[in-house]
Amino acid sequence: MKKSSRPSFLGSMALVTPFTSLLKSSVIFAQKKGMFIHHVYFWLKNSGNKEDKAKLIDGLKKLSKAGTIKNFYIGQPAATRRDVIDSSYDVSWLLFFDNAADQDSYQTDPVHLKFVEECSALWTKVTVYDSVDA
Amino acid sequence: MKKSSRPSFLGSMALVTPFTSLLKSSVIFAQKKGMFIHHVYFWLKNSGNKEDKAKLIDGLKKLSKAGTIKNFYIGQPAATRRDVIDSSYDVSWLLFFDNAADQDSYQTDPVHLKFVEECSALWTKVTVYDSVDA
Repeated sequence: MKKSSRPSFLGSMALVTPFTSLLKSSVIFAQKKGMFIHHVYFWLKNSGNKEDKAKLIDGLKKLSKAGTIKNFYIGQPAATRRDVIDSSYDVSWLLFFDNAADQDSYQTDPVHLKFVEECSALWTKVTVYDSVDA
Repeated sequence: MKKSSRPSFLGSMALVTPFTSLLKSSVIFAQKKGMFIHHVYFWLKNSGNKEDKAKLIDGLKKLSKAGTIKNFYIGQPAATRRDVIDSSYDVSWLLFFDNAADQDSYQTDPVHLKFVEECSALWTKVTVYDSVDA
């Protein structure tokens, strides 16, 4: 294949539109040293209740506006089933922070406190896994 | 502030180098419909054993070459401690796939089978959370 005089430029440009258009509206995750991954799993009091699930998801969408959140992903259990898979949760909330201090700030962010106030009655259990670079 | 005639072009170009240079070498995560998030937490038999932890991390680095993995993040527990936080695991393994079928392929990828063969003696427990768009 004939080499272009500017393949890296053209190759990069193909990435520009999707990456920039998705910024903060969904998730872009560029790993760098010191990142902080905060993954929360929610179990609803009324597990399987569509209305409560929708309320929680709406709450998380509002919560995503908290200032130090770099990016986020709102999920639900996939269809996979194996012994090691825990698919009993209702909603997952995956957050990316630039560093541990930003996650600390998030915990006391008014947007976060409001979310807890408005939505905590919906869940019966929350499990959090916080991760930093191994 | 005076508006440039091409601010979006210049703004986009600033993103090009870090995004493209990080591709697959670490994590870039651009959410799109149908994505599949596979988050695995490992508990070592010899929890806290640095050598075993290093062996597992080395194994995961090799495993990251599995063809259908879009991006990955290898983590360890952050310093955060609250009732809802499970910080008892030793290593976390966060994978991004373009779709559920790619995760299915990963499960039987020879690179994955070799990883399980070489490293499964290191861990006593694995918990997996698979998530798709909520």
